[in-house]
Amino acid sequence: MKKIINHPDGVVEEMIDGIVLAAPNRLKRIEGTTALARKETPIQNKVALISGGGSGHEPAHAGYIGNGMLDAAVLGEVFTSPSVDQVYAAIKAVHSGYGVCLIVKNYTGDVMNFEMAAELATIEGIEVELVIVKDDVAVEDSTFTTGRRGIAGTVFVHKIAGAKAEQGGTLQEVKAIATKTVKHIRSMGVAISPCTIPAAGEPNFLLAETEMEVGIGIHGEPGIARQELGTAKSIAKQLLEPVLVDLNMEKGTEVVVMINGMGSTPQMELYILFKEVHQLLETAGMILHDSFVGEYMTSLEMGGASVTILQLDDELKALLASKSEAPGFFVQS
Amino acid sequence: MKKIINHPDGVVEEMIDGIVLAAPNRLKRIEGTTALARKETPIQNKVALISGGGSGHEPAHAGYIGNGMLDAAVLGEVFTSPSVDQVYAAIKAVHSGYGVCLIVKNYTGDVMNFEMAAELATIEGIEVELVIVKDDVAVEDSTFTTGRRGIAGTVFVHKIAGAKAEQGGTLQEVKAIATKTVKHIRSMGVAISPCTIPAAGEPNFLLAETEMEVGIGIHGEPGIARQELGTAKSIAKQLLEPVLVDLNMEKGTEVVVMINGMGSTPQMELYILFKEVHQLLETAGMILHDSFVGEYMTSLEMGGASVTILQLDDELKALLASKSEAPGFFVQS
Repeated sequence: MKKIINHPDGVVEEMIDGIVLAAPNRLKRIEGTTALARKETPIQNKVALISGGGSGHEPAHAGYIGNGMLDAAVLGEVFTSPSVDQVYAAIKAVHSGYGVCLIVKNYTGDVMNFEMAAELATIEGIEVELVIVKDDVAVEDSTFTTGRRGIAGTVFVHKIAGAKAEQGGTLQEVKAIATKTVKHIRSMGVAISPCTIPAAGEPNFLLAETEMEVGIGIHGEPGIARQELGTAKSIAKQLLEPVLVDLNMEKGTEVVVMINGMGSTPQMELYILFKEVHQLLETAGMILHDSFVGEYMTSLEMGGASVTILQLDDELKALLASKSEAPGFFVQS
Repeated sequence: MKKIINHPDGVVEEMIDGIVLAAPNRLKRIEGTTALARKETPIQNKVALISGGGSGHEPAHAGYIGNGMLDAAVLGEVFTSPSVDQVYAAIKAVHSGYGVCLIVKNYTGDVMNFEMAAELATIEGIEVELVIVKDDVAVEDSTFTTGRRGIAGTVFVHKIAGAKAEQGGTLQEVKAIATKTVKHIRSMGVAISPCTIPAAGEPNFLLAETEMEVGIGIHGEPGIARQELGTAKSIAKQLLEPVLVDLNMEKGTEVVVMINGMGSTPQMELYILFKEVHQLLETAGMILHDSFVGEYMTSLEMGGASVTILQLDDELKALLASKSEAPGFFVQS
């Protein structure tokens, strides 16, 4: 294992310190926890938006904290859900009495812990709603999941629900728009090389020199097929087609695409993949409204990429375009 | 070689297509070239700022095109200077009669081709100045360089000279501030794993399972020592100390730090390295004004990182803080 670290057991703690030290005017650690929050929380008369999950997916989720997106992110150990206590502490620290919306990727551990924390908070009289993201069309059940997995499309849920909350939307309105966004996103990914969890010290799966794993999860969970490495053109087709079939949109529908790098894939390859996806969307008669190409939901140094499509309507389009100061997803006003 | 591409020979062309297709309202390709420019160029009454160099360093340099930074970037093949013709065509396409400033990293091929293009443009009556960046303190001469190499610190030159140009600075003023910035930046990098140029098909150097190369260049050029992989703490010290010695600043000097990922290094590791650099700067009595942690000047999928220090004064601080709409270095106004 080759990593620029001090000790495998300290990576998340030290990363959190680093993130706060790099943005001391913007971020704070919620005392005694592994949760990060906007410095100005709790923010009055605003629904507090909280996400989180295992670490190793940076910039998810701490990079999405900021005006226009999340209030806080609760960080677990690498690829491991944060505990109930951590999530509960974050809810208590950032709520202002206007309600809390939790955005959770669909993994059994995350869903269980965020739900239990929500229950504890509800008992204390804090209004909490929870929205589960399950955008990955590759598999129905998986290593850590019942139903579909939540992957890179989650970032669009942060952005759109974050905009609604910033505009003063009520808890039910924020929940409704987050739920609607979940219904409008689909994703699928491919891996060409594995990653190594620091505490494990060994790669989380193995691929032969010319193999790729189609439908990979963001923790290296098996996909739907292990195949000979294809061209960018063939990979684009393999990832986009199931997404389009599942969304079943009419021709002329406006969409947004995200090409997400898994960690070690150069931007060069992401743009080549994007060019192919762009061509396929045109052929399918879709109207490309906007594009995001970069690293949004990584898996440490895994090699590979995912394709996400967000089906737009006027409401989603306006919320997506509103200002965001979160460093992982800047939108200038 | 495992890459998401179609053919090794087409990677730069296809990447350029992808970059333009992803931002059609913001960018254009300068016809018949591998240069990208802001859609609205030539911009009247503004010095045109152009950079470029070999591809494979994304987001450098196309990601730094935008209001507040570059007008254009001229892209060569992977790790190869663009030709004189390409640079010359870019100068002619984006100049508005207010002068052109070229920002060039110190590599023999780049310097020669940008200088010749500048001469050709001058003969045509276009005022052109050229500023060479050489921030890498690791080695004096190197595989492709006489003198010091230009690496990640170049991004600060783009930002600061870009701000001056946007404010209406004259060509001599833009050149002066770029030259001053070059004098105020120092960098040094380390690699823990190599990268593969698509057309070569083989890694550009080899490291044993526990080795790292200290003082690596952004094309994999040898550094100053091949050593046993150290901790983040020891690596921070090895990279920062020569930088601080060379800058020779008084205690209490305000500085900006950039921790730059070489390609496959997770943000987690960059923040851990940043934490150590932060500690060392504090011990050295420096005042950390701002921090940038992420991928700014990559080497395809090389593993490793570089540390850059920018020594501030009031003028540099103000220009660094002004608005930038370049996606690789957003600054909100």
